[in-house]
Amino acid sequence: MGSTQARIAIDAMGGDHAPAEIVAGALRAQEELGVKILLVGDPEEVGAAVRKHTSASPLEIIPAEGTIEMGEEPLSALRRKPKASINVAMDLVKRKEADAVVSAGHSGAVMAAALLRLGRLKGIDRPAIGAVLPTLIAGKPVIILDVGANVDCRPKFLEQFAFMGTVYSQYVLGIETPKVGLLNIGEESSKGNELALRTHQLLQKNPQIPFVGNAEGRDVLSGNFDVIVCDGFVGNVLLKFAEAVGEVALQILREELPQGVRGKIGTSVLKPNLRRIKQRMDHAEHGGGLLLGVDGVCIISHGSSQAPTIFNAVRLAREAIDNRVLDRIQSRYKEDSQTSAVSGQQDG
Amino acid sequence: MGSTQARIAIDAMGGDHAPAEIVAGALRAQEELGVKILLVGDPEEVGAAVRKHTSASPLEIIPAEGTIEMGEEPLSALRRKPKASINVAMDLVKRKEADAVVSAGHSGAVMAAALLRLGRLKGIDRPAIGAVLPTLIAGKPVIILDVGANVDCRPKFLEQFAFMGTVYSQYVLGIETPKVGLLNIGEESSKGNELALRTHQLLQKNPQIPFVGNAEGRDVLSGNFDVIVCDGFVGNVLLKFAEAVGEVALQILREELPQGVRGKIGTSVLKPNLRRIKQRMDHAEHGGGLLLGVDGVCIISHGSSQAPTIFNAVRLAREAIDNRVLDRIQSRYKEDSQTSAVSGQQDG
Repeated sequence: MGSTQARIAIDAMGGDHAPAEIVAGALRAQEELGVKILLVGDPEEVGAAVRKHTSASPLEIIPAEGTIEMGEEPLSALRRKPKASINVAMDLVKRKEADAVVSAGHSGAVMAAALLRLGRLKGIDRPAIGAVLPTLIAGKPVIILDVGANVDCRPKFLEQFAFMGTVYSQYVLGIETPKVGLLNIGEESSKGNELALRTHQLLQKNPQIPFVGNAEGRDVLSGNFDVIVCDGFVGNVLLKFAEAVGEVALQILREELPQGVRGKIGTSVLKPNLRRIKQRMDHAEHGGGLLLGVDGVCIISHGSSQAPTIFNAVRLAREAIDNRVLDRIQSRYKEDSQTSAVSGQQDG
Repeated sequence: MGSTQARIAIDAMGGDHAPAEIVAGALRAQEELGVKILLVGDPEEVGAAVRKHTSASPLEIIPAEGTIEMGEEPLSALRRKPKASINVAMDLVKRKEADAVVSAGHSGAVMAAALLRLGRLKGIDRPAIGAVLPTLIAGKPVIILDVGANVDCRPKFLEQFAFMGTVYSQYVLGIETPKVGLLNIGEESSKGNELALRTHQLLQKNPQIPFVGNAEGRDVLSGNFDVIVCDGFVGNVLLKFAEAVGEVALQILREELPQGVRGKIGTSVLKPNLRRIKQRMDHAEHGGGLLLGVDGVCIISHGSSQAPTIFNAVRLAREAIDNRVLDRIQSRYKEDSQTSAVSGQQDG
């Protein structure tokens, strides 16, 4: 890929605001990001949504039938609906007709479809969802994984997450030697639950992972770590908590804004900024989670995604494609399969 | 107790700012909260700290020798130093010469000393640390437990935490029927890791716990729940993350404050409020965690506690004493030991 135009398949039927907002984000992405968008969904519905924006037909529409609903059990629904939009989108990547999938649909179904249709990368037992969040240090994001794919983990899974996060940080975020931390309840290596204690040992022994030690809750957004690994239960709780933080901060700000005449001046000056503050904390800003460890680039966006989130999700996908993240994960595993630098197979 | 004056033993030697800040908080607490403070520590050091504030000697000093240092392994250190301040403080409660202990020292040591010297309440397998946090709804705090005492939990432990949180919410926070939530990755009862799935079932069956369902990360500070239960690993990560949120919000606020002349007006108006905003999010405000499930009221304050935190910790202790939280936990377990309403002994 690299120099050729990235082709992104977007599940136009997935999410609370599909297809209208998905299409709006897709149109903007193709226009501004230099990618080719393949809109997957019901041709009539998607076509109508496109025509609301433009009379030209700038986006290719790939027909699909139906979608996986939020209440459905992913595996059986995917089997029952082979032509559902997410299945069709994954097949485009499998047939190398697209380089990535973006979906704001049922996240369990996206994961399951990716596993079933694309399979895992060699050396990876469990794919993880990575979320890239801003930190206190401007321009220095942190990738946290897993934020929801695996709720019960073994130490070797976390070791693999750490490795994938390292590659992502190096090649997409441009950090030569990323600081990798293990989410834990204390700095000392003696602290933690059974999973953390055993993972700590694996990470310390792994020469491929620039492990610097445990990261506590307060360190997550400090900017002192570039990669933070945890199981998908803790990561999901933390991510959703973080997403609510913008709202909490704004609410407190509103309540604490000074009253009276001086207060009114302050408020009027601040108001235009409130939106920007909220935006900075919002999930819209980071586009979605990157499903790392499957044989294809997949971005899982929030179910409530609107156009800006989809736009950012496409950007995230393009970055992963342009920087050949999957190849690099894969090739490093190949290189080191003799030296067994990733100890998972034995220890975890 | 109730009508008689609450007697609070404060570990004057525990914490980064001991004894100066501990003593300052203690003096203010005795003056304003109508409690009797027993300062436990080295008589000379503590006496000197008191004399910096007043020439009178308003506080009783109970002599102790040494303290448990942060790097020490709690159990062996507690045994090696029987007269350490935290041991002496716990013994005061055991001999019924004090009603509660407040300490900003080594939290593992405080827990271990409480278990060794006071023992567990009947019916409780594992004590939990509960943290009372403000929510988006003013005046409607939430108690989260466990935030650090038990990193690997069984379902019945979480069920007991839910019960203790319910009692606390009812009798201290005055919520007649508290909404109890289980921290999880989704609302549906089918979501979660093994621990969450099994705990969900126990909570649903327990008539003593007003369980309303799963709480996601975004619900923690929403005010929609009065009690949230989780294992001590997740709870600790979340609490420390929440404590850092004040700082993150302030930082973003500073960066996003408008520039130029209008900006300067806004900033000058806002500045006095920044401190109040930070305070509202700070751990100082909630005083510390309540160690629930041991046979005595124990408040574990942050190691970095200064005078205001200690003051609030004493208030928290007094509320637990005045509202007879331990008796109520104990007596309900007694009442229901026949009906086995807490299923832990069988299912967990």
